[in-house]
Amino acid sequence: MTTRSVDFYFDFGSPAAYLAYTQLPHLCADVGANLVWKPMLLGGVFQATGNHSPTAIVPKGPYMTEDFKRFARRYGVPYEHNPHFPINTLMLMRGATALQMHEPDRLKPYCDAVYQAIWADGRNMNDPATVGAVLQGAGFDAASLLAMTGQQEVKDRLKAVTEEAVARGVFGAPTMFVGSQMFWGQDRLDFVREALST
Amino acid sequence: MTTRSVDFYFDFGSPAAYLAYTQLPHLCADVGANLVWKPMLLGGVFQATGNHSPTAIVPKGPYMTEDFKRFARRYGVPYEHNPHFPINTLMLMRGATALQMHEPDRLKPYCDAVYQAIWADGRNMNDPATVGAVLQGAGFDAASLLAMTGQQEVKDRLKAVTEEAVARGVFGAPTMFVGSQMFWGQDRLDFVREALST
Repeated sequence: MTTRSVDFYFDFGSPAAYLAYTQLPHLCADVGANLVWKPMLLGGVFQATGNHSPTAIVPKGPYMTEDFKRFARRYGVPYEHNPHFPINTLMLMRGATALQMHEPDRLKPYCDAVYQAIWADGRNMNDPATVGAVLQGAGFDAASLLAMTGQQEVKDRLKAVTEEAVARGVFGAPTMFVGSQMFWGQDRLDFVREALST
Repeated sequence: MTTRSVDFYFDFGSPAAYLAYTQLPHLCADVGANLVWKPMLLGGVFQATGNHSPTAIVPKGPYMTEDFKRFARRYGVPYEHNPHFPINTLMLMRGATALQMHEPDRLKPYCDAVYQAIWADGRNMNDPATVGAVLQGAGFDAASLLAMTGQQEVKDRLKAVTEEAVARGVFGAPTMFVGSQMFWGQDRLDFVREALST
């Protein structure tokens, strides 16, 4: 039997991607699937597809926050709308890419720290000093991580994964693939589970 | 004990509203709630809120069709993307409003006929002759229904319900309310059920 896997395209700036991140590791563990982390730049996806944040539609913003709260309660995870939203995630996503390339075991702890800072603790991750403090607090050497985000191969890799996402049909975050089946949104995890179980 | 109710804001042109319509009557019967039909003009909602059809984002169109097919399989109901989409639903929605005002018992059979024609049978409901044939086939006097859609009170009522929807925060279809709790999308019916059951 081949091990099934889920490609998980995510950006730290998306609260929906955060909610999916809180569920996918144990969902994959439950069904014996591999979780393949695919850090991408959502801004790049929006630019390529003409899509935009749901908050661009004024009444959609508060509704989405309420909707995310309902799912967070269902999942039993913290969630608060970040007062500094939207967050420019370029450096944060490059950090994820850098760790995936150079210290893959530290990618998950990094995602834990960044996602918690933004979507549970309401930190201002637009602010480099805050980013440094959050990462130091999670046991990372912020200066060396920052240096890695400047590597051309890291920049190129994040760009390539973003382009790969767009080429596969991605227009938002989170997006999951099980084989060629695409699932958009943290509210499609039950379908992801079904696809992995059949 | 007061009887709970669901306000169901819908437009025939939305496949998501169609899917919700296939589920809400028995969902409400299950939990002993009233279903309050709220025909609105989705185009008017889009105009008021700056929202637009998801198909405006090119890769979103085919994905949404696949997503609706997944839910249709789950629900066990027919669904095919209508080849004549988008449908101009002004007259069709006025027909729903007219029946709700003048022959409320016939609103549900009318919705059955129109929804089936568009989202199961792929009929071109932009074409008045097709609309006439579909309605005659479902036992309606198409000519008298057409006459009703010309009444000023019918036009005003559809406009008023659309404005009421926007005032309540609606930006898309379907939208359901349980008291002041708003739920957007046919994929939120489980939350509607929860809200009605607590």
